Amino acid sequence: MNKLSLIKVGGKVVENPETLAKLLNDFKQIAGYKILVHGGGKLATELSQKMGIETKMVEGRRITDRETLEVVTMVYAGLVNKNIVAQLQALHINAMGLCGADFNLIRSSKRPVKDIDYGFVGDVQEVQGDVLADLINQNIVPVVAPITHDRQGQLLNTNADTVANELAKAMAPHFDVHLYYCFEKPGVLMNPDDDNSLIREIKRKEFEQYKEEGIIQGGMIPKLDNAFNALACGVKEVIITQADRLLSGGGTHIIV
Amino acid sequence: MNKLSLIKVGGKVVENPETLAKLLNDFKQIAGYKILVHGGGKLATELSQKMGIETKMVEGRRITDRETLEVVTMVYAGLVNKNIVAQLQALHINAMGLCGADFNLIRSSKRPVKDIDYGFVGDVQEVQGDVLADLINQNIVPVVAPITHDRQGQLLNTNADTVANELAKAMAPHFDVHLYYCFEKPGVLMNPDDDNSLIREIKRKEFEQYKEEGIIQGGMIPKLDNAFNALACGVKEVIITQADRLLSGGGTHIIV
Repeated sequence: MNKLSLIKVGGKVVENPETLAKLLNDFKQIAGYKILVHGGGKLATELSQKMGIETKMVEGRRITDRETLEVVTMVYAGLVNKNIVAQLQALHINAMGLCGADFNLIRSSKRPVKDIDYGFVGDVQEVQGDVLADLINQNIVPVVAPITHDRQGQLLNTNADTVANELAKAMAPHFDVHLYYCFEKPGVLMNPDDDNSLIREIKRKEFEQYKEEGIIQGGMIPKLDNAFNALACGVKEVIITQADRLLSGGGTHIIV
Repeated sequence: MNKLSLIKVGGKVVENPETLAKLLNDFKQIAGYKILVHGGGKLATELSQKMGIETKMVEGRRITDRETLEVVTMVYAGLVNKNIVAQLQALHINAMGLCGADFNLIRSSKRPVKDIDYGFVGDVQEVQGDVLADLINQNIVPVVAPITHDRQGQLLNTNADTVANELAKAMAPHFDVHLYYCFEKPGVLMNPDDDNSLIREIKRKEFEQYKEEGIIQGGMIPKLDNAFNALACGVKEVIITQADRLLSGGGTHIIV
């Protein structure tokens, strides 16, 4: 099978024109088939502020009311997505911008209300991988915004890490998928305050051990749980690395 | 060759949820392959107002400064495009949203400054029809927002009628193309004040005669010039009709 690199890049890289330009140049250097999944970060918050919409956060997570859904649809699927596509086209990469509604790529369901009503947030239910794989085989490079739909006409805001993970799994029957999460840190660290304490490789047994010892904790645990879930579903390797070290071969490699 | 219906719908239909829902339902009924090209109309002006951006018009035409380009990219290629796609998906039409930057579908060049500086407005230079035709042959229904790019990384605002016309011409080698312009009036009228004075069919000779007699004038002349240009490039027929009469077989049919 052919190699496919799926790169997920967060809002911090995207919102700064210089870091974005560097990322896209590095992305160009990656050989073989590829997909870019992006967030939008502060750009959505900035537009909300300009429009006088209050950004509601509960426990560090954005609440997506109807107005905020419009903002993220405009910023992620419109402004950020199409600007990335135009910039990749200028680099002679045949990019195509997509969200989860396009050819029913990612169907999700509105998150049920328990303690917190997250609003128009979608939990991924199903990915239609075949059309996407066909496009990739035609040397098209999908650029995916983290907006999905419920197939009842409702768009839904969806976590970009989850979108990347689900796309990686859906592409695993078609390609040898290598999933890169671009992160602020060089990767998974033995000591979160020491960037030189990078763990170069983690297998599940080591992950369980690091968790037990309290070396890996907090937000890194669900990230790694997702990574092992992707590996269990046929993804070849998951790499957690810094955006500006995408080509270095560094970062933490999560493998079976 | 298979039939392809290309429907261009303007901002007035799109900005009202009820007229949009009716249009999409009618669109579903059209048999065979199809493309939808949409504007965004007042929705862009409304967002500009909310953001405190002044809308600059010269001789009835919007000037696209950098901020306005961001607004139309967000509204046309994001909000409007992805909502139409989600609603078509709910109707079980396999829609895919696109702008001209996606797989380099429509390359344009920034309009040169003569008397008026229109800003970031693109005049269409080249359409890549092959990938679009492949998608259509896979039963995908493209939904196209009138944002193009210069292949140097710059997005450009482009007239939606022109986008429809250029796409129709580019599809003519692949399909029997029928191009529908949805319009506020029932079609081309003998008397602009009398909706019952519809001209059902126009050939070029009649058009020249109507122009000479002053029956057809103003903004209708470039519309019909474009229509005859499309016919000269292989489009089978151009229909100017009201959005809510799309299925009636009415309107003005412009034929060779």
